[in-house]
Amino acid sequence: MRIGVLGAGQLGRMLALAGHPLGFELVCLDPARDAPAGQVAEHLAAPYDDELALARLAACDVVTYEFESVPVATARELARTTPVHPSPDALAIAQDRWTEKSCFRELGIPTAPFARVDSEDELRAAVDKLGLPAVLKTRRFGYDGKGQSVLCRDADIASAWRELGRAPLILEGFVRFQRELSLLSVRSTTGETAFYPLVENEHSHGILRLSRAPARGLTPALQATAEDYGRRLLDRLGYAGVLALELFEEGGTLLANEMAPRVHNSGHFSIEGAVTSQFENHLRAITGLPLGSTALRASAAMLNFVGAPPEPALVLAVPDAHLHLYGKEPRPGRKLGHATVLAPDETTRETRIASLEKTLAARDESR
Amino acid sequence: MRIGVLGAGQLGRMLALAGHPLGFELVCLDPARDAPAGQVAEHLAAPYDDELALARLAACDVVTYEFESVPVATARELARTTPVHPSPDALAIAQDRWTEKSCFRELGIPTAPFARVDSEDELRAAVDKLGLPAVLKTRRFGYDGKGQSVLCRDADIASAWRELGRAPLILEGFVRFQRELSLLSVRSTTGETAFYPLVENEHSHGILRLSRAPARGLTPALQATAEDYGRRLLDRLGYAGVLALELFEEGGTLLANEMAPRVHNSGHFSIEGAVTSQFENHLRAITGLPLGSTALRASAAMLNFVGAPPEPALVLAVPDAHLHLYGKEPRPGRKLGHATVLAPDETTRETRIASLEKTLAARDESR
Repeated sequence: MRIGVLGAGQLGRMLALAGHPLGFELVCLDPARDAPAGQVAEHLAAPYDDELALARLAACDVVTYEFESVPVATARELARTTPVHPSPDALAIAQDRWTEKSCFRELGIPTAPFARVDSEDELRAAVDKLGLPAVLKTRRFGYDGKGQSVLCRDADIASAWRELGRAPLILEGFVRFQRELSLLSVRSTTGETAFYPLVENEHSHGILRLSRAPARGLTPALQATAEDYGRRLLDRLGYAGVLALELFEEGGTLLANEMAPRVHNSGHFSIEGAVTSQFENHLRAITGLPLGSTALRASAAMLNFVGAPPEPALVLAVPDAHLHLYGKEPRPGRKLGHATVLAPDETTRETRIASLEKTLAARDESR
Repeated sequence: MRIGVLGAGQLGRMLALAGHPLGFELVCLDPARDAPAGQVAEHLAAPYDDELALARLAACDVVTYEFESVPVATARELARTTPVHPSPDALAIAQDRWTEKSCFRELGIPTAPFARVDSEDELRAAVDKLGLPAVLKTRRFGYDGKGQSVLCRDADIASAWRELGRAPLILEGFVRFQRELSLLSVRSTTGETAFYPLVENEHSHGILRLSRAPARGLTPALQATAEDYGRRLLDRLGYAGVLALELFEEGGTLLANEMAPRVHNSGHFSIEGAVTSQFENHLRAITGLPLGSTALRASAAMLNFVGAPPEPALVLAVPDAHLHLYGKEPRPGRKLGHATVLAPDETTRETRIASLEKTLAARDESR
């Protein structure tokens, strides 16, 4: 079976590595000549609107994406002839923070208070309504903390408007969350649904740095609440594939922050840490195969390598550590790879995370 | 780092899949145009003595092989300029049942009695010495039970000679073994050494059908004996990489049957079943990286798919089953893929093996 993929970054690369053993041939479309998936799958280096390349994808058995800023028009065009999963509608909703948060609200999934902002007057009205602090965000194309501005005082309103006001915006109430969690859900074209245990995420400079799976002190009640929200989304969107839902935990309640209609950085632990990886389950889901178990094999943690690669020998000397490099040229702020550590219990996990972090420190000192 | 590989079959394919996350680029040489590794790594489709192709391999940082019938001369030629692991000497010894068994004997590793046979007279003398039944084998290029003849009565001598006498031969005493086991050993260029738990293997028509890891009822004493033999070989051969040693268990003792200086079909369980797969550990070993743990994650079993592929949906519906297809065209007697099942205990493992075997039966009925 041939699977077309919009995007050929590291997510596409890991999809391809999961796909080969299942007998799937992946064909990835990505304008970047040196895209990471190109080393392990067929890569069409062309713009997302290249007719010849799109015809090649349309000839696949199913099309998916690994990158949510893919033009919705492209996904819709492909869907006229070829199954596209997740659906272009899910993609469209997730691309816009306003439609996304509105979808959460419509489904009764709690969020921070939010208001649509299309002018400086609307921004002032929204601040009056939501209070300060609040976060002004572009509705589209934000990622890794980009396109955001925190408003603490009235004086910040004008400067934030100058910074971001050229694009459609959303103002969100500032959430004093205890931690960020994410739920990786997966739903097959057959309707079969599964959820990974909640992951706890730490960011640095807006980029995911560390994930722990399961989240520390995870209770069945918290997991059940998150799964309830995940299930509402999957069913509402008629979803097939992996869906990542980012959640803030604030005083025992969960607030949905955003969703990504694709495999997700916070799910990378699942390659070794779960019975079935998010990549394999995404492929199973969009091809209608039975889903694999989402149970954990151990306590897992994932550490991203951003900007500079680690010394492989140092990473691999950590017990039960697994290295994943993406074949990318180093560049500041660029995700170059990750390592996952497994451990029999949470205490050992923390020790191993500390060992992994030392490999980063060694790298930074040697620069 | 670039790693040259002689051979591009399924073993090369699984080496490449393990190598990408470690940042290794594999370049495989194999005359077969549709070689399985070619879908996931650079593939030079040329004869093993092609000068241009060998120059490409010689330009790699290290060269290895995934196929032990590679010409030793090729390996030696490459070793003049480039590290070749395992060493061409190890390859030469393993290619010839006589030098192989002589090596076992020299190291004090028990074997069935054996005698070199280069003429029909020598065959008769060997039968007189070893008694019947005995097994006549070609010294070179035997695999999956090919190039062998069992002699039960004197009358079989002449026919076996007619069948096999054109090649150098070895006669081996017939071992009434209880079961076949294999030991996967790994030794790094740094001298670091590790052993996987003994695997129990069942064959069908001379081809590996089923492996259980660990072997049923494995005792620490049996494991220690096998590791002692494995360590003698690794040290004697100055070995780097994975070495597979096939053993017969006969009344509580272990007899060495043959060795393969490469990753091995009976080690495929390790992709999911061990903390570190044999493929990753082979790559770590030949590049001098720290070895990964060889501990099992669970009770594991591996079932080969020979001749016809399974129905993926049936395989993937078995709990904790993992499918590995090699991208090969079906052909009678050809290994097309395998599945590994993990289980929390040996009883559950047997239930899951039975479920997997049902998927084969379903396949056979549908043909």
